[in-house]
Amino acid sequence: MIVVMKPHATEEMVQAMVRRVEEMGLKAHVIVGEERTVIAAAGVKRDRHQTELESCEEVEKVVPIVAPYKVASKETKPEPTIVSTRNLKIGGSHVGVIAGPCSVESEKQILQVAHQVKAAGATGLRGGAFKPRTSPYSFQGMKEEGLKLLALAREETGLAVVTEVMTPHHVEMLSQYADVLQIGARNMQNYHLLQAVGETRLPVLLKRGPSASIEEFLLAAEYILDQGNKQVILCERGVRTFETHTRFTLPLATVPYLHERTHLPVVIDPSHGTGIASLVPPMCAAAIAAGCDGLILEVHPDPSRAMSDGAQSLTPQAFAETMQACRKVAEAVGKELG
Amino acid sequence: MIVVMKPHATEEMVQAMVRRVEEMGLKAHVIVGEERTVIAAAGVKRDRHQTELESCEEVEKVVPIVAPYKVASKETKPEPTIVSTRNLKIGGSHVGVIAGPCSVESEKQILQVAHQVKAAGATGLRGGAFKPRTSPYSFQGMKEEGLKLLALAREETGLAVVTEVMTPHHVEMLSQYADVLQIGARNMQNYHLLQAVGETRLPVLLKRGPSASIEEFLLAAEYILDQGNKQVILCERGVRTFETHTRFTLPLATVPYLHERTHLPVVIDPSHGTGIASLVPPMCAAAIAAGCDGLILEVHPDPSRAMSDGAQSLTPQAFAETMQACRKVAEAVGKELG
Amino acid sequence: MIVVMKPHATEEMVQAMVRRVEEMGLKAHVIVGEERTVIAAAGVKRDRHQTELESCEEVEKVVPIVAPYKVASKETKPEPTIVSTRNLKIGGSHVGVIAGPCSVESEKQILQVAHQVKAAGATGLRGGAFKPRTSPYSFQGMKEEGLKLLALAREETGLAVVTEVMTPHHVEMLSQYADVLQIGARNMQNYHLLQAVGETRLPVLLKRGPSASIEEFLLAAEYILDQGNKQVILCERGVRTFETHTRFTLPLATVPYLHERTHLPVVIDPSHGTGIASLVPPMCAAAIAAGCDGLILEVHPDPSRAMSDGAQSLTPQAFAETMQACRKVAEAVGKELG
Amino acid sequence: MIVVMKPHATEEMVQAMVRRVEEMGLKAHVIVGEERTVIAAAGVKRDRHQTELESCEEVEKVVPIVAPYKVASKETKPEPTIVSTRNLKIGGSHVGVIAGPCSVESEKQILQVAHQVKAAGATGLRGGAFKPRTSPYSFQGMKEEGLKLLALAREETGLAVVTEVMTPHHVEMLSQYADVLQIGARNMQNYHLLQAVGETRLPVLLKRGPSASIEEFLLAAEYILDQGNKQVILCERGVRTFETHTRFTLPLATVPYLHERTHLPVVIDPSHGTGIASLVPPMCAAAIAAGCDGLILEVHPDPSRAMSDGAQSLTPQAFAETMQACRKVAEAVGKELG
Repeated sequence: MIVVMKPHATEEMVQAMVRRVEEMGLKAHVIVGEERTVIAAAGVKRDRHQTELESCEEVEKVVPIVAPYKVASKETKPEPTIVSTRNLKIGGSHVGVIAGPCSVESEKQILQVAHQVKAAGATGLRGGAFKPRTSPYSFQGMKEEGLKLLALAREETGLAVVTEVMTPHHVEMLSQYADVLQIGARNMQNYHLLQAVGETRLPVLLKRGPSASIEEFLLAAEYILDQGNKQVILCERGVRTFETHTRFTLPLATVPYLHERTHLPVVIDPSHGTGIASLVPPMCAAAIAAGCDGLILEVHPDPSRAMSDGAQSLTPQAFAETMQACRKVAEAVGKELG
Repeated sequence: MIVVMKPHATEEMVQAMVRRVEEMGLKAHVIVGEERTVIAAAGVKRDRHQTELESCEEVEKVVPIVAPYKVASKETKPEPTIVSTRNLKIGGSHVGVIAGPCSVESEKQILQVAHQVKAAGATGLRGGAFKPRTSPYSFQGMKEEGLKLLALAREETGLAVVTEVMTPHHVEMLSQYADVLQIGARNMQNYHLLQAVGETRLPVLLKRGPSASIEEFLLAAEYILDQGNKQVILCERGVRTFETHTRFTLPLATVPYLHERTHLPVVIDPSHGTGIASLVPPMCAAAIAAGCDGLILEVHPDPSRAMSDGAQSLTPQAFAETMQACRKVAEAVGKELG
Repeated sequence: MIVVMKPHATEEMVQAMVRRVEEMGLKAHVIVGEERTVIAAAGVKRDRHQTELESCEEVEKVVPIVAPYKVASKETKPEPTIVSTRNLKIGGSHVGVIAGPCSVESEKQILQVAHQVKAAGATGLRGGAFKPRTSPYSFQGMKEEGLKLLALAREETGLAVVTEVMTPHHVEMLSQYADVLQIGARNMQNYHLLQAVGETRLPVLLKRGPSASIEEFLLAAEYILDQGNKQVILCERGVRTFETHTRFTLPLATVPYLHERTHLPVVIDPSHGTGIASLVPPMCAAAIAAGCDGLILEVHPDPSRAMSDGAQSLTPQAFAETMQACRKVAEAVGKELG
Repeated sequence: MIVVMKPHATEEMVQAMVRRVEEMGLKAHVIVGEERTVIAAAGVKRDRHQTELESCEEVEKVVPIVAPYKVASKETKPEPTIVSTRNLKIGGSHVGVIAGPCSVESEKQILQVAHQVKAAGATGLRGGAFKPRTSPYSFQGMKEEGLKLLALAREETGLAVVTEVMTPHHVEMLSQYADVLQIGARNMQNYHLLQAVGETRLPVLLKRGPSASIEEFLLAAEYILDQGNKQVILCERGVRTFETHTRFTLPLATVPYLHERTHLPVVIDPSHGTGIASLVPPMCAAAIAAGCDGLILEVHPDPSRAMSDGAQSLTPQAFAETMQACRKVAEAVGKELG
């Protein structure tokens, strides 16, 4: 932690700050520059130390040196984490593909699409039974009935089921049906929910909040990891920026950036990341070329009849073509799709 | 709803789309322009109609005409909603002032600051007992013990207690201590939580998410209103933008913009909105001049010893001076502070 | 400058970096922490030193300690700069008011509006003769003819003329007509233009670019100051964020933040900052309460017939009412309007 | 253009608006919905019509139907534009590669790097002689001397020279040395400069401004095209968002989105887009997989001694490895690199 004093801080103020730093059990090094005096504070820091020092009037700013996430850090565990459940493998040389509709709508719909995405090469099945919707007047999902249909689709196809959990008291029930619990972007900082899924031993797919920094994202993962659940999959699904021509802005540099800092695998969601079906195939290819460990995609038998997110859903045929194109890109970067 | 067809849509495609619109129970009007054909669809719309039409391949875009929030809308209820509990009045000609520490830290701390802010003119007391913290390793609040201290401070001062609820199963317990339930920015779209507070009859202070659009913000309020709880206070606390010199960017135009669209009162949080204590007083004055219905502020007896958010907390003395300055601005715009 | 070494940097790498820092003529202080080694580099730095050190492979990051602007800094000149030309006074206890149409459209229009804004209390007249327009097919201004009309309006009313210059070779010509040269937001980093206006001795109103950081904004001012022109007025006109309900997001915290760092006066443009005429009056009041040194506003005799920016222009009557309301707020904060 | 009337607009107001629309030479269609009346205005529109209608008090909003760019639009010219100069081919099946240092620093530096990038497969040479720098105190480039060195490097290697022009009166001089004129991101809306390069017959590489919308980007291209210069290369170099872990946020969905709307080729700049050398190689691969027509990259013989942008520059060896990896990805998507 580097404490930068204000321009005209007196020797006395600097000494008072040094005592303060030492009271925290840290070692203080004073460096007198031409325009500012800075105090480097070394030792085991606690989050509140920074807050406290920043609040001192004679301090201009405090610069942290070490990232605050620990268990998620590559410094803690250098080798990559591979999440594997049923046929779905995410991480290492595997690019897992999770496909399916935004919402489970009927038995016919989910079974049909499950078989279609399986045939095209998917190894995971997505489908929402509990749907977080911006408006209270929108379709909120089939709830437990939808989970049963997902389980049925799994039975028929062998695909791992990935589905969203919205509130802590649903975690137990969903755990009976799901292979991977998904935390939606809106809930990335719903800490009670993160702790609840952290207490299970199911893999968790954690979506980045639309305005979360990478540090906040990894700290959200840390809430899960801290409960002993080590199988966290990070999912970039686009961030909210001034751009309005796409639903969100999809920053693929997240992939290599996270790979430099964390051992957790990184999955891309180009459906939400763009919001436009025709942009999904090129962004799948780009995500793989950027080194991602998996894709999560919306596929609907008839997007124009979908109860949610139709505009960004691929048809089963477009999905099959996308898989073919992506397989070549995966090979070009030394990975295996599906 | 206006459906814009793609440039080279044939007459046949237009007719198919007209049938589709009519199947939805809407009336279709076709307008053939020089470069595009558009279909105006009039009637009672459901959210999913837009989604469905957007997914049709021959459609370029769908433009909604009417905002999707209803109960929150001024079109439903033109006169402003005034929230009043104990001495705290928010709305109409009253600019309510809720002040207190980020976190309840001890009996001494909360009682001291409660008396101080009361003396300076506050009518509500803020203080977190359950704290949503970015890192799992940060101080998480005193929990129920903290709530008891807040109730004690209320008993001594008469200030209305405003405190945050983080998860649905805490709502009942918090309702025993709080006068106003606060939904934090991170939980603005935690729909189960919104519904749970909607089922109480306590006023709810709903913070805008850092990247929520105004429409999403009002739809989050709608989740609460839809449960029959009509006392929703909207709180702007800053949005996340490219600006890093302040903690968030505080867009005060939110105040008059919301006042044009909703009857719900609007409160400003300049502490989180700027993150820097020295910027809080001018932004309080600016918020009042912009027409806000209340302020929520962090005040700590010794900010440099605060367990959270010290850098943005006012000292009791700075708060008292701010109140004095704000009283004049409130008068200048025909309002009453506190 | 603080150089943070990568986690596993060896003693050798640290020593190499120390030599490197010393080659730059800086003094190096090594601080060995538990998780990182940092090197504090004190002395006179040049911009490229940071770049060089950042590029070294064993360096994690370089944290600058001192802001790169000099002449604009309050550390160089603590007392506020007041810009005064004809009746227009900006800074100190004066809140200057510059009003007028987006574009000069005709003699009748500009003379009419000049008299109207003068009567209501404005001391400056804005009006574009050279218009930067997003589309090449939009009205580009009346050019020199427009400048002559502005000069005529000045003659009749005594208002100081503020008008935009778009390219270096126009500077001389515009200087014959203008009292204040305006640099538009799109040109904030058009360095040749900044240098050209820096060579004149006319006050310059420099608009913040829609995504410029405060540091970039002050460095743009520094380009002008560095040429010897000390009369720079900083203008916040809104930044581009994810918000779309207003044209831009107007961050009023810019006002006190800049006042803490620079002696230059700060003017607010709520017309561009919101893009919606009905939001302009409350944001004028808020800007004054936040401590601004001036306002620049669009006023048009008949906004619905304006050739540009009609939606954000006040009618002369709305402007007069706004001035009345603002006068009270200015008094409340100890300032004088106009 | 769709004009949405305010909720309680009377029949009279609607009729007045219809007359207004007809005065503009447009045909008006009135559609009376349950909650709003809308007027569809068909015909040849001029930019100012939208502005005028938006300014009418009884109008809630005006929704444009057709994009305002014309010459850049795929509707005007469906087949893709291919820019070809010396060995550099951008567009069609060619992924052009422009590489070189941020700034020309010396004869030795530019010749060395030119030979190195040529050997690795580049077909264009970048290098700044006139440098737009955020601070007036930073290195501003070698100016004409630098251009001569670029011409020398071209002579020796055959690489096409791409270099930035900052102000209109330099256009003629730069045209003697450059094969492609680059407009930097800061100058995307410097309209006099756009017109000046539009008057030449050299290809222009136009960088997207860091907060420019796609529509503004294409309208900037339109300024060049409108002067008769048809060889415009669009360059995405990252946008400014709340993300700070990378220098900018690089939105690769720009590539397929632009390809759907314009015939102009699209080039990606992952050096500025990320600002971190280690992220450049994966983002090059991702850009190609997303379908881009070219790359522009910073390569420096010794990044840690670079006078600008060292942190984002590849070493010649890293560049050669990147080219090898990219060649495979290009093949996988049916394109040819270089």
